[in-house]
Amino acid sequence: MDKRFKILVSNDDGIYSEGIIALREAMLEIGEVFVYAPHKQQSAVGHAITTHLPLRVNPYYMNGEFFGYAVTGTPADCVKLAVTTHMQERPDLIVSGINHGSNAAINVIYSGTVSAATEGTILGIPSIAFSLTTYIDFDFTYSKKVAQIIASAVLKHGLPPGILLNVNIPPVPEEQIKGIKITKQGRSRWNDYFEKRVDPQGREYFWLTGTMDNIEDDEDSDVVATKNNYVSVTPIHFDLTAYDFLKELEKWEFK
Amino acid sequence: MDKRFKILVSNDDGIYSEGIIALREAMLEIGEVFVYAPHKQQSAVGHAITTHLPLRVNPYYMNGEFFGYAVTGTPADCVKLAVTTHMQERPDLIVSGINHGSNAAINVIYSGTVSAATEGTILGIPSIAFSLTTYIDFDFTYSKKVAQIIASAVLKHGLPPGILLNVNIPPVPEEQIKGIKITKQGRSRWNDYFEKRVDPQGREYFWLTGTMDNIEDDEDSDVVATKNNYVSVTPIHFDLTAYDFLKELEKWEFK
Repeated sequence: MDKRFKILVSNDDGIYSEGIIALREAMLEIGEVFVYAPHKQQSAVGHAITTHLPLRVNPYYMNGEFFGYAVTGTPADCVKLAVTTHMQERPDLIVSGINHGSNAAINVIYSGTVSAATEGTILGIPSIAFSLTTYIDFDFTYSKKVAQIIASAVLKHGLPPGILLNVNIPPVPEEQIKGIKITKQGRSRWNDYFEKRVDPQGREYFWLTGTMDNIEDDEDSDVVATKNNYVSVTPIHFDLTAYDFLKELEKWEFK
Repeated sequence: MDKRFKILVSNDDGIYSEGIIALREAMLEIGEVFVYAPHKQQSAVGHAITTHLPLRVNPYYMNGEFFGYAVTGTPADCVKLAVTTHMQERPDLIVSGINHGSNAAINVIYSGTVSAATEGTILGIPSIAFSLTTYIDFDFTYSKKVAQIIASAVLKHGLPPGILLNVNIPPVPEEQIKGIKITKQGRSRWNDYFEKRVDPQGREYFWLTGTMDNIEDDEDSDVVATKNNYVSVTPIHFDLTAYDFLKELEKWEFK
């Protein structure tokens, strides 16, 4: 096959993160790679876009070689700017990550990693978000392989309009992986609150803390699948309509 | 009925905006009102939460009277902080808005207004987002009435777990309103790009601009309903799983 696929790589941990270095390396074996990533950490930004400030796009070099563009915005900004304005040709595929930490269950809606892929999907390009489900001891060896397998499958099959893939990878060596499982977004929530503290000037401030409520027991959910050492692949979309509730709501009298 | 409902009011335009003043006034006729809103404009922040910085909560006074709390965070932060930590009792209802501008179709996923209500729903409290679909000449007279009608209906019926209401109100006088319509999230997208400019120092920067692609013709969509002078009420949820695509995806071979 002659065609070299054009692959746009972004993330939310920032352009200098281990995860995007791994994802770029993995994609270089499949196609031509273009990196547009936030110039600094952007976790938990949700699907934020920057409308009230201009963005800067700066070339970023690693060990003296051109690596990609650092954008002074959110993950969604990076993808929107790259595709609509900065790249000379439209990419065939957009990949985001590899995130340092899980983006499963309720975290999907807070996730900058997913938001980069969502923006790609809005722009009509097949897109995938990748996350490694640990916050410590990152080893991206197997994640890179998974990223290649799933990216190749998406390039082969395409994705329906409005649908992206959200991939979560367990932090274990390949020999412990049980397979790739198609999953649903889980229902686990954060059980969080704000710690009240007092600053050196005696003024109070609040800092978010908490733990994930792992109430999930559905084996087909993203959370349980990765806990059971499956790679979790969830197809997600951004039609948020709660169709099941439409009929009930029609019965309400508004007065 | 003795009970005074406790109503939490938030928004994304900031605590000093006309829209939240209108919404607070409307809710005062239904119950006891608690305002927690961003200290400054937070439009298009999506479902961002602040994890890497502490938050400040400052009492805000208007014309010498206590109005509510200004929070140095996002709309989702305001709601999470109020409910989990700062309020003495759980609210019975959370309302967000009234936004200056539409939050229909694709804008739902960028919307800070919707995100405040989404956070309320995650916390298990019935929540509603209100938006007035104009960017100029705000008259909240009829919007306040709509907010009372819909808030009362939600307090009466409740909402199923995980579902919130997204309400868009046309910017016309009450006599031109055709009714309240239950709708689906529309499919219109932004047709946007970044204008390339040069700063006084000769460095280039990029600024987002664009127009909404009004490709919508479904009369049951939020966009068309408000265009036809109906108040649009869309039930939305945050299970993003694309269920229709699960079976197809199961057939893919990953190798």
